[in-house]
Amino acid sequence: MKYSQLFGKTKHGERSGSDFISHQLLLKGGFIEESTAGRYFFLPLGWRVHEKIKKIIKEEMDAAGGQEMISPVLHPLELWEETNRTNSVGFELMSIEDRRGAKFALGGTAEEMFVDVVRKFNLTYKDLPFNIYQFSTKFRDEMRARGGLLRVREFVMKDAYSFHTNEKDFKKEYQIMAKAYAKIFSRLGLKTLQVEADNGYIGGEYCHEFQVESPIGEGRFFVATDKSYSAHEDVAVFYKENKNIKEKMKPYKEVKAERGNTMEDGAKLHQLPLWQQIKDVLYVNEKNEFILAIIRGDFDVNETKLLHLSGSYQLRPATEEEIRKLGSEPGFISPVGLKSKVKIVVDDSLHTIRNAYGGANKKHLDAININIDRDYQADVEGDIAMAQEGFLTGKTRSPLQEKRGIEVGNIFQLGYHYSKRMKNATFIDKDGKAKPFYMGCYGIGLGRTLATIVEKYHDDRGIVWPAKIAPFQIHLISLQGATDQAKQLYEKLNKANIEVLWDDRDESPGKKFAVADLVGIPIRLVVSTRTGNEVEWKNRASDKTELLTITQVMKKLSV
Amino acid sequence: MKYSQLFGKTKHGERSGSDFISHQLLLKGGFIEESTAGRYFFLPLGWRVHEKIKKIIKEEMDAAGGQEMISPVLHPLELWEETNRTNSVGFELMSIEDRRGAKFALGGTAEEMFVDVVRKFNLTYKDLPFNIYQFSTKFRDEMRARGGLLRVREFVMKDAYSFHTNEKDFKKEYQIMAKAYAKIFSRLGLKTLQVEADNGYIGGEYCHEFQVESPIGEGRFFVATDKSYSAHEDVAVFYKENKNIKEKMKPYKEVKAERGNTMEDGAKLHQLPLWQQIKDVLYVNEKNEFILAIIRGDFDVNETKLLHLSGSYQLRPATEEEIRKLGSEPGFISPVGLKSKVKIVVDDSLHTIRNAYGGANKKHLDAININIDRDYQADVEGDIAMAQEGFLTGKTRSPLQEKRGIEVGNIFQLGYHYSKRMKNATFIDKDGKAKPFYMGCYGIGLGRTLATIVEKYHDDRGIVWPAKIAPFQIHLISLQGATDQAKQLYEKLNKANIEVLWDDRDESPGKKFAVADLVGIPIRLVVSTRTGNEVEWKNRASDKTELLTITQVMKKLSV
Repeated sequence: MKYSQLFGKTKHGERSGSDFISHQLLLKGGFIEESTAGRYFFLPLGWRVHEKIKKIIKEEMDAAGGQEMISPVLHPLELWEETNRTNSVGFELMSIEDRRGAKFALGGTAEEMFVDVVRKFNLTYKDLPFNIYQFSTKFRDEMRARGGLLRVREFVMKDAYSFHTNEKDFKKEYQIMAKAYAKIFSRLGLKTLQVEADNGYIGGEYCHEFQVESPIGEGRFFVATDKSYSAHEDVAVFYKENKNIKEKMKPYKEVKAERGNTMEDGAKLHQLPLWQQIKDVLYVNEKNEFILAIIRGDFDVNETKLLHLSGSYQLRPATEEEIRKLGSEPGFISPVGLKSKVKIVVDDSLHTIRNAYGGANKKHLDAININIDRDYQADVEGDIAMAQEGFLTGKTRSPLQEKRGIEVGNIFQLGYHYSKRMKNATFIDKDGKAKPFYMGCYGIGLGRTLATIVEKYHDDRGIVWPAKIAPFQIHLISLQGATDQAKQLYEKLNKANIEVLWDDRDESPGKKFAVADLVGIPIRLVVSTRTGNEVEWKNRASDKTELLTITQVMKKLSV
Repeated sequence: MKYSQLFGKTKHGERSGSDFISHQLLLKGGFIEESTAGRYFFLPLGWRVHEKIKKIIKEEMDAAGGQEMISPVLHPLELWEETNRTNSVGFELMSIEDRRGAKFALGGTAEEMFVDVVRKFNLTYKDLPFNIYQFSTKFRDEMRARGGLLRVREFVMKDAYSFHTNEKDFKKEYQIMAKAYAKIFSRLGLKTLQVEADNGYIGGEYCHEFQVESPIGEGRFFVATDKSYSAHEDVAVFYKENKNIKEKMKPYKEVKAERGNTMEDGAKLHQLPLWQQIKDVLYVNEKNEFILAIIRGDFDVNETKLLHLSGSYQLRPATEEEIRKLGSEPGFISPVGLKSKVKIVVDDSLHTIRNAYGGANKKHLDAININIDRDYQADVEGDIAMAQEGFLTGKTRSPLQEKRGIEVGNIFQLGYHYSKRMKNATFIDKDGKAKPFYMGCYGIGLGRTLATIVEKYHDDRGIVWPAKIAPFQIHLISLQGATDQAKQLYEKLNKANIEVLWDDRDESPGKKFAVADLVGIPIRLVVSTRTGNEVEWKNRASDKTELLTITQVMKKLSV
């Protein structure tokens, strides 16, 4: 392709896009262009990269036994109602009505659609298992789009859904997909960490994210120093050591407490350790129910865990007014005596301490010697604590290291989550009985993967594409006077099916070199009258140049 | 691929889908499945065909210099407002609002989007021309979905947009695209006719459809017997011969007319030829304006032509009540004396007759010796006549033949239609001045093309895919006892990269043969203990079978 004819040339020094280097380079290099916030055009250069990524994903999905198909973009809303996702997904779901009044969701993921098509086939155990997948545009009504392709409102996702007769069979597939993902990302030049994660509104019992370590990543996760454990902050568990658990329970007592509202104020006043204090945080869920989360004073509440343990879809902190209306006081909340009005969700760390202290639901009144089970009861008890760097893993007591990463893919156990909520999502088993499918699903966002590659492969002059996904293999530059020579080489390369972008424009050498560096094609060839019949070869990733004859160039390329 | 593992097996004798054979066969064969009316899943078999069609289109588009890219599916509605298409498209446009209140159209075509991305680049004449295209899901809120994939509400379209400095340059591209289209359809096994057509809500001055002749096609078009002309009924023009044009004008006169409301009643009463009668049809447009269409009695009004000539977006026939309210009478409408209340749109055939007769706006009152210009004036005059079989072409006086067809593609001159309506849709020309782009656009619907191929390639047992787009090349059938032998052949074929679908199930020969016939893969190979080491080869399109050794099979396939 001739650069003069390419639509989407570089934009040097214009809009910076955002602080994210991938956003800047993809915009400036002519790979993408914004339509409205979070919705992008892929220009011809960018689309070539996108489609090469797609091809690698498809090859590995097919090699792993996947079958590509496609579902409509508009999903009948009644399917999402069948699984209650119209409630659980909340605002991110976009819906639309057609002129006959039929309602549709714009697909964000497609679990219901795939279950719906599968259940139309009256399958038996003989037809199972299978893994069906698609590449299709997905929609997320994100409040904030961010970082170019890193968080968008519209993107192509590869989403796969597997159907099994039982859990054991599913588990094999889960491993197969995990391996396929590792291979996909490795082929794309990305080193990924497989990390336990929260399933958000997808459902199911467990899932894993594939994270590429990066300081600009939105995801925070923990990896055990001994590598025995890795998990996203949303779900990371850790060892909660027993504290003064052997102390005798002392009598519950309320005391005057002229103090400020922070945990530190309490510790200072009572001259007791932070861990012995009770941390109380009051939330309101989507049904306007009050949820009181309580936890040991040295830990923080993990809202994702709290969401699940409290059975809520959405949580927000209660206002001071709401706290007072409940008969309590900001900074002095206590579970003692509030039971009837709120759901008390207790972190299991409260069973690692005795004779705790904290507020007593009145301004400047504290309680001491508060003990769980005796002074207050949990409505629900479990793990609602946020892990932190240095905390220990449960099994191996290995310190957690905090990392940031970009989530490029994820795999989900779904189990019976969808097949039990949707009617007739069953197959006939060997015993002649109808049983629900055991399911999994598996996603990769292509645009985000592309941006992540740029985050990893660039220098201060531009992108440095890995060869496998580069838009072209050769960036041919002809300097003034050498057009005929360049044309010959261009035609030779095209004939040999080597992808070449020829900057045939009447521009200065400096400008052409800068474009080549920005666009990041792996090999730069320069033809000029100065070097006669020889061609200057330079790899984008290196500063070394060498002069080669055309024959040598062709030979080197055929390796 | 093993048929036992395929998702989307055949459904013999179940739902018939519709009267359309392509709909029936694609459903029964396991190629597609309906989600809701007009929205289809492509199952793995169907998607393989779809993607092969896509590949052929892409190859020819690229060979013709096209550059693939992609635009977002959600188009900012303000772009459609900029070109007034929110009005002109009407009900077929679906729109949606996000949670921040931004409004979007679900793309039906993407002219505005492509102009919008192009105008962001401040191009000069040096960057032109180019042709950028995409394959993407399109939405049409059709009142009626029909015939499986033939008329749907959601489908993948290849849409291309070319940008030029001037009309001359565009015209070259229009020819290039016409040739590319002919080649695409020819490679797909479809014989197409390039037919002048109406541009609907796309705009521009002229366009052509690629029609595949078929009795089930929605499109009616005319081809001159001498092949000098072909045009869709919406736009087809024809020779309107002069009638009694040399007669002297006689005095206008109103006469009693105890007759029925039809044209025949009038002719009978006055004992005059039909062509001498004036046909008056009253319409109401989208602004509730009355449009009176008048035409020579032996012709019919072409509503598409009328739409354009009257400058309306939508037309409906006036009700009897509306006709009376206007001071006229159903069956007796006349342009004489109605001028102030309605827009009179006159077919140019009224200038081929003299002393016409017709109604006089009162029940049982007719007028005779009505003459245009003398007794009434046209607000607009032009061609609003519908062509008919046997009418003659304007230039060569060759009789028109009527045909029906399926429209599988179209190409449009857009000219300045979009670039003049949208701000800054300009490039800097050689003279340093900003000028609007001269444009064209070019579309192919992939699903409809697929269905059309099935309409053309089937017999009473099922589909007979052309090899280039068949989901697999070989349908391997193993009969009981020959599993090992089949497995060896299956592996050999896979190793040779020959696409093979192996029906490895424990089913009767009859059932397996029926599946193979329905699915329509070009070559059927049968392995059975009965034929020993030999394999039975049968082409789907033929009834002849032959026994070959494996070596012979491989040799025949490598040709």
